[in-house]
Amino acid sequence: MINQTGKFIVIEGLEGAGKSSAIALVNDLIEQHTGQAPVCTREPGGTPLAEKIRDLVKIADASDPLSDEAECLLIYAARTQLISNVIKPALAKGQWVLGDRHNLSSLAYQGGGRGLMPLVKAVSDACLAGFTPDLTLYLDIDPKLGLTRAKSRGQLDRIEQQAIDFFERARQTYLQLAQQDDSIIVIDASQSLELVHQAIRSQLLHRLPLLFANK
Amino acid sequence: MINQTGKFIVIEGLEGAGKSSAIALVNDLIEQHTGQAPVCTREPGGTPLAEKIRDLVKIADASDPLSDEAECLLIYAARTQLISNVIKPALAKGQWVLGDRHNLSSLAYQGGGRGLMPLVKAVSDACLAGFTPDLTLYLDIDPKLGLTRAKSRGQLDRIEQQAIDFFERARQTYLQLAQQDDSIIVIDASQSLELVHQAIRSQLLHRLPLLFANK
Ligand SMILES: Nc1ncnc2c1ncn2[C@@H]1O[C@H](COP(=O)(O)OP(=O)(O)OP(=O)(O)O)[C@@H](O)[C@H]1O
Ligand SMILES: Nc1ncnc2c1ncn2[C@@H]1O[C@H](COP(=O)(O)OP(=O)(O)OP(=O)(O)O)[C@@H](O)[C@H]1O
Ligand SMILES: [Mg+2]
Ligand SMILES: [Mg+2]
Repeated sequence: MINQTGKFIVIEGLEGAGKSSAIALVNDLIEQHTGQAPVCTREPGGTPLAEKIRDLVKIADASDPLSDEAECLLIYAARTQLISNVIKPALAKGQWVLGDRHNLSSLAYQGGGRGLMPLVKAVSDACLAGFTPDLTLYLDIDPKLGLTRAKSRGQLDRIEQQAIDFFERARQTYLQLAQQDDSIIVIDASQSLELVHQAIRSQLLHRLPLLFANK
Repeated sequence: MINQTGKFIVIEGLEGAGKSSAIALVNDLIEQHTGQAPVCTREPGGTPLAEKIRDLVKIADASDPLSDEAECLLIYAARTQLISNVIKPALAKGQWVLGDRHNLSSLAYQGGGRGLMPLVKAVSDACLAGFTPDLTLYLDIDPKLGLTRAKSRGQLDRIEQQAIDFFERARQTYLQLAQQDDSIIVIDASQSLELVHQAIRSQLLHRLPLLFANK
């Protein structure tokens, strides 16, 4: 039987938390469970326009420094494109969607990190109109450890170069929001890759059948 | 004596209302009055990043159609860059700024035209924090006449290709907002260029000395 409405699963966490490798695992678990690979998205990005916006957010231009407000608005512009043109059409066709970041990143980074929570909430409310993931796995990590891992991959981008307290505030916001929302699962991402994946697998073993049944 | 704080004058109106030629005139009047040419800006645009955003808003991509919300957020991202990096620094140095469109365009086009007034107001309030032009000249024109003029200049862009009721709604919003705000002057732009310029000249003859005195 074909699923009428797909589910939207999101992986969240600070830089170097291990989102990319978690996504490979979750992708396989969804495919095993539903018989179909999910549509994978990343934010900001995931449509031709949203990828252009991603470049504007990631690259630093000393002659025209990006204001915090502009950063926030650009990220939401990319998000509304992705929701309208990719995520909602896929879900409507019964496909599952697996996201590398979504709105929780903006609440944590722009809201908590930049101190723009009123703007973030106003824009979320007006643009998302209650659209929210069915399940979020938040990979929790000390930003110092995450950035050490991220550095091992190569040069840091404009966001990754923020001061450590920016990421500390973002982490606190992630944790607070996770506490208030049953659809957000916190995974201790400071553990070895093996233990992180074991935790993800055991969480999804319970949750995927529930999501799959509850079409 | 040097002006300590410059003034921000904006020209507004639908496509083909005659903003570009009004700006040339107002530029000269400001220069005669203050002894210095104003800093000229256009929106969306006016900084390296904001000009890239302008391209994203102006060009239609059928494979990834721009959502109304994304359009609105992109325009505000460009505006906050322009305010932070160009307009406010110039005003702080005592320079006058002459804008080809500003926030009133978003209230009219995205608020009235697209029906997104709650989003527009939320973002304006959060991002502009009361920053507003000292004087706005709104060139009022029937959109059919304006578009006929604009067409004579060449190909219409994505915004100019909107249906006529979009522009009718924008015009009504311009007129309503002008009625509620003493700093917005309505000029009948359906007249000949000579009469339009005469009206602008006579308005500024009164207003510039007041603005100049009231530093
Ligand atoms: N649990 C772990 N233990 C040790 N190393 C890890 C662990 N998880 C990920 N890594 C390594 O850390 C680096 C960053 O991981 P990854 O790219 O998955 O992070 P990310 O959350 O996707 O980061 P970004 O947000 O920057 O995309 C990679 O080299 C990865 O192999
Ligand atoms: N009052 C007028 N009477 C006749 N033609 C006019 C008048 N004002 C402007 N035009 C002509 O109409 C065309 C559009 O004018 P202009 O480019 O100044 O409009 P605009 O408001 O700047 O438009 P846009 O918003 O598209 O930049 C030009 O060719 C201009 O010479
Ligand atoms: Mg990654
Ligand atoms: Mg013009």
